[in-house]
Amino acid sequence: MLLKIDKTKPVPLYKQIIEEIKRLIHEGALETGHPLPSSRTLAKKLGVNRSTIYQAYEELQAQGYLFSRPGSYNIVLRRQKEVSYNPDRKSLIAWDRASSPEAKKIYEIYLDYSPEQPRNLKPDSSVISLASLNLDPRLYPLQDFRRVVYQVLLNHGQEALQYGTYQGYGPLREYIAQRLRLHGISVSGEEVLIAGGSQQAIDLVVRMLCKANDRVVIEAPTYANVIPLLKFNRVKMVPVPMKPNGMDLRILEKVLAREKVSFIYTIPNFHNPTGITSGHQHRERLLNLCLKHRVPLVEDGFEEEMKYFGRVPLPIKSIDEKNIVIYLGTFSKALFPGLRMGWITADKECIQRIMAIKRFSDLTSNNLSQVIMYRFCKDGYYDLHLKRMHRIFRKRMQIALAAIEEWLPRTVFWTKPMGGYTIWVRAPEKLSEDELQAKLLPYGVIVSPGTYYFPHQRSSEYFRLCIAQLDEEEIKEGIRRLGKALQFLFPLKAQEKRN
Amino acid sequence: MLLKIDKTKPVPLYKQIIEEIKRLIHEGALETGHPLPSSRTLAKKLGVNRSTIYQAYEELQAQGYLFSRPGSYNIVLRRQKEVSYNPDRKSLIAWDRASSPEAKKIYEIYLDYSPEQPRNLKPDSSVISLASLNLDPRLYPLQDFRRVVYQVLLNHGQEALQYGTYQGYGPLREYIAQRLRLHGISVSGEEVLIAGGSQQAIDLVVRMLCKANDRVVIEAPTYANVIPLLKFNRVKMVPVPMKPNGMDLRILEKVLAREKVSFIYTIPNFHNPTGITSGHQHRERLLNLCLKHRVPLVEDGFEEEMKYFGRVPLPIKSIDEKNIVIYLGTFSKALFPGLRMGWITADKECIQRIMAIKRFSDLTSNNLSQVIMYRFCKDGYYDLHLKRMHRIFRKRMQIALAAIEEWLPRTVFWTKPMGGYTIWVRAPEKLSEDELQAKLLPYGVIVSPGTYYFPHQRSSEYFRLCIAQLDEEEIKEGIRRLGKALQFLFPLKAQEKRN
Repeated sequence: MLLKIDKTKPVPLYKQIIEEIKRLIHEGALETGHPLPSSRTLAKKLGVNRSTIYQAYEELQAQGYLFSRPGSYNIVLRRQKEVSYNPDRKSLIAWDRASSPEAKKIYEIYLDYSPEQPRNLKPDSSVISLASLNLDPRLYPLQDFRRVVYQVLLNHGQEALQYGTYQGYGPLREYIAQRLRLHGISVSGEEVLIAGGSQQAIDLVVRMLCKANDRVVIEAPTYANVIPLLKFNRVKMVPVPMKPNGMDLRILEKVLAREKVSFIYTIPNFHNPTGITSGHQHRERLLNLCLKHRVPLVEDGFEEEMKYFGRVPLPIKSIDEKNIVIYLGTFSKALFPGLRMGWITADKECIQRIMAIKRFSDLTSNNLSQVIMYRFCKDGYYDLHLKRMHRIFRKRMQIALAAIEEWLPRTVFWTKPMGGYTIWVRAPEKLSEDELQAKLLPYGVIVSPGTYYFPHQRSSEYFRLCIAQLDEEEIKEGIRRLGKALQFLFPLKAQEKRN
Repeated sequence: MLLKIDKTKPVPLYKQIIEEIKRLIHEGALETGHPLPSSRTLAKKLGVNRSTIYQAYEELQAQGYLFSRPGSYNIVLRRQKEVSYNPDRKSLIAWDRASSPEAKKIYEIYLDYSPEQPRNLKPDSSVISLASLNLDPRLYPLQDFRRVVYQVLLNHGQEALQYGTYQGYGPLREYIAQRLRLHGISVSGEEVLIAGGSQQAIDLVVRMLCKANDRVVIEAPTYANVIPLLKFNRVKMVPVPMKPNGMDLRILEKVLAREKVSFIYTIPNFHNPTGITSGHQHRERLLNLCLKHRVPLVEDGFEEEMKYFGRVPLPIKSIDEKNIVIYLGTFSKALFPGLRMGWITADKECIQRIMAIKRFSDLTSNNLSQVIMYRFCKDGYYDLHLKRMHRIFRKRMQIALAAIEEWLPRTVFWTKPMGGYTIWVRAPEKLSEDELQAKLLPYGVIVSPGTYYFPHQRSSEYFRLCIAQLDEEEIKEGIRRLGKALQFLFPLKAQEKRN
């Protein structure tokens, strides 16, 4: 038995011996059933300590290469070789067939779902993206954040790095409750559940309220990522069109009279994608319809803090006397989306029920981030940051709307949002997402195609513009480019020009 | 109209005016249809700037308290009052009936599920918990962690606080792949998906592979939190008993011959709760059964890094030539569970399919924690920490086993784990969880009742001991107390004493 070991190598000797014996077995030099020398003999031969051999043999026994009864020789066993890396190795399982029908669908239809990036094109860095709703990272208050993190790790490190509680960090829940009071919502921390971003919050609500084939009312258009989420959860969507003042309540009334729905999903402020903010009267009427039909209303307040123009009605949750509104909030649209922090506030029993589901789906949320976020808010940095964000985006939105007025041709129409980041544009013709992006890209600009915001659309005359990630100059230039592209794509016809 | 405003208060004047007008409306002093004075008139009367009144009126219009047509007076509207806080207000929705059947079950059965804390008793701080599998926070390498966090926030703050990628932070995935090679698993970062702890990882696997009423093989006993997770996902559990060398493969073979199962869930190392580590031959046979029946094998390697005694077989994934093993890993059992960081490695297509589901259930995992964890590992702190953990727990487990030998009566039996934190004890009699804890608590010790680790058990002769959270003295004292309690509960009978 020829073992090559090298005492000058940094690898421990027993490990070298293990590897050598494994090699000899796999090469066939040591055959199954073959006895190995005693530890004493081998130790002598290799000039190593007997305990080294002993350790190697024990490890080889554990790994299934050797077999021994007490007091007898170690016998070579036949065992499967560890598999070496091969990226092209096929699986014996047909994952397609092994998947649940919903998992199959989500993979086949939505793997390349890409509302904010062209699916089949690679824009270079000179292209201006009017597509992305991710907040401009240049605006993160990094210095304040660092200061808070240092303090938390110095004073609360052990606590913050341990598992948190199922409902979320208590002081953060209290802070959120207190903050919601600024928006007219009166709840306590007991009625708040922290979730991993509002996407998880919606997923949890759906997992609580919906069984297979249940119906959910959504606005059409609605938040792009909620459509696959509902489909995956085997929910049937009932789209209700958006009107300039919010969801069409006459149609909603007919829907509710006709069929049972599990809940209604609405985004009353700076609606994604349209940018529409519904009025107070609309909110009351919507709530009253829900009360009449005893349907929970899921209110997505994802940009509640981005009321930089003022003049926005209070959330529907603020007048929810009968506790039927499940309100979703998030930090991600104003601060550090990478921390994945959202919340749900609702009737206490509803929160407890959602919490039971969350517990078994991920135990608890990231505790460190919750403790840090609490201190960040508590120390006043969140308020400071929001003030700055309001100043900046008030200006940016004004610039965007002015540039649109200046550059976009009269053949297209657009919304004038009262806050947030998105503007919704209607062109005179429907285009598929690939056509739209392919036509805009040569002008150095991309947008978010309208197809993504409706349940079943292959082409759309709509697209979404977004200013979350652009500074003033980028906004102006992006919209100028868009204007040029649209003027070329949708020129005014001669008779329109005369008017 | 009597408005009380106070120019010395720190609240902006327009906000004071808003609150006053709202008050008058809600008190009925301003009736519906009543016109308000013009902004000019009111400004004069209050001695404030006209723009202040203008701003207040605009906000009140938005909030639905006033209505005006251009050029005419503001008219008071009737609107619902904002709801004030009342913790006892009942919801109009019967959440019970609004819940899906699974959500109802999870709430009713599992809201007080408490494997590691007595459900109906409150142990004081003098009680030693042999129940908790949460790592001792005193062992966290906080100083190293702080150093890494500071560096990350200084150099990569913007990137780390932005949304991450769906699959998880690339460098961390590469690091995990590299680390898995130490355990004989050869994959690349492409075959790794980061999840929010291994609980989320299991949830995702179930959501991918199981439709309603599918069957899944679990070990009996198994990880307590996986039982409610499977029930919530409408999966039928097929329990296969644990034998001293792992799941009973003869029974498994019969199960697989008889019925179709979606996957088999196994914990080969330091099995939770029994502490059993299966041998290499057992692993090969289990894998071969899965191959024969083309059933995916979900291998939970939750304590892969806690092999402090050596002599542990390599993971089943290491010999998975046909890519049918879905391997789950986590940092939580050795480091910072509060960061909620686990991973899945499997066939690339399988990973892509799981990723599609994860994307719509929470978009991405916490990015900051991933970037930090990567740097922590990359800079060598994880290796250092594990070395220290091995030294500490090798000693602690030896102490635990010696104390058990010394104190536990001959009427009970226990496993001798080859690593990890848990020991499984069998008493001569079945007890309900409440009985068990109520009998131990007077001795100043609690354990984790066996009932939690089987699908349908109201009483059990088993319980789990755990040393993850205790130092050497606490372990000795805890086991001494346990021994006293057990000697009293299960005394040797006279004839047994004679033997």
